Amino acid sequence: MNIEDYLSNNKNRPIAFVHMCLDPIHYGHINIIKEAKKYGNVVIGLMTDEAMLGYKRKPRINFEDRLIICEELKPVSYIFPLDGINYASVAEKYKFEYFLHGDDWKSNIQSDSRKKLIEVMKNWGGVVIDVPYTKGISSTEVISKF
Amino acid sequence: MNIEDYLSNNKNRPIAFVHMCLDPIHYGHINIIKEAKKYGNVVIGLMTDEAMLGYKRKPRINFEDRLIICEELKPVSYIFPLDGINYASVAEKYKFEYFLHGDDWKSNIQSDSRKKLIEVMKNWGGVVIDVPYTKGISSTEVISKF
Repeated sequence: MNIEDYLSNNKNRPIAFVHMCLDPIHYGHINIIKEAKKYGNVVIGLMTDEAMLGYKRKPRINFEDRLIICEELKPVSYIFPLDGINYASVAEKYKFEYFLHGDDWKSNIQSDSRKKLIEVMKNWGGVVIDVPYTKGISSTEVISKF
Repeated sequence: MNIEDYLSNNKNRPIAFVHMCLDPIHYGHINIIKEAKKYGNVVIGLMTDEAMLGYKRKPRINFEDRLIICEELKPVSYIFPLDGINYASVAEKYKFEYFLHGDDWKSNIQSDSRKKLIEVMKNWGGVVIDVPYTKGISSTEVISKF
C-alpha cells in the first residue's frame, strides 16, 4: 500500500510520525517508538542513504538493510523513505496529527526545521512532541563502541 | 511469565528456538527469526554478556539493551537469557520441537555442540534445522563498518 492510500484511510488516523536513521538501531529508538504508539498509529520516516549523507554522515548500514529491521518492530504501522529534513513540507503533505522527536533537536542542526514545523502544523491542529532524549545512547555513541 | 510456565502451556507449542547475541542486530537475524516463525512460536535464547565473553567476544551492547530491541520484534513470542552454548542441555530441559541455527555452525566452534544437540533431540522427536547462512552479513561484519 502506498503512503497516500494508507494515510487517506481514516481508520489509520491519528498518525504519530517519527523519523529516524536506525544506523544502527538502539534502545533510544525503541523508547521513542513506544512513546509514539501512545498517540496513534506509528509511521516511520526512514532516512534514505542520500538524506543521511546530506545532513549527518555516510550510513554504515544501507537503507534496505535498515528497513528490514524496522519492518519487524511491533509498534510500527507504516514506513516510508524520507529523503531530507524538510519536516514542515512532509508534515504539510501528509497532515500528521503528531510529530515526535527526541528533544535534543531543540538545540542541534535541526532546530530551525523544528521551529518551522511547529508553525506549519498549527494549520491543521497538529502537535510537535519533544520526547525527553534517552540519556546515554545515540547511534553515534553505539558506533564509538564498535 | 517465566519460561517454565510459558513452555508448559500446550497452546504455545510447537516451539521454534533460536539463540542469538544481537550485538548488533542485523537483517541476517531477521531472516532466521522469520524462518523460525514458519515452524512454530519463536523463542529466543538471548546470549548473556557472560556467555558472549566465554565463547565469542566482549559484547559491545549490554544484555539489557539488546533485550529491549528483541522484545519489540513482531515474530518473537518469548525471550530468555542463555548463559552458555551447551545447547543439548537447554534443548533437553525445554524439549523444543525445532532448534534453528545458521548453517555456518556446521564448521565453526559450535560444530560439536550441534552434533550433540542433534543426537539429544532425537529423544523426543525434536529437529535441528540449519538455515542457509545469510550471505554478506554478520555482526562481525557490521562491526567492521563502524
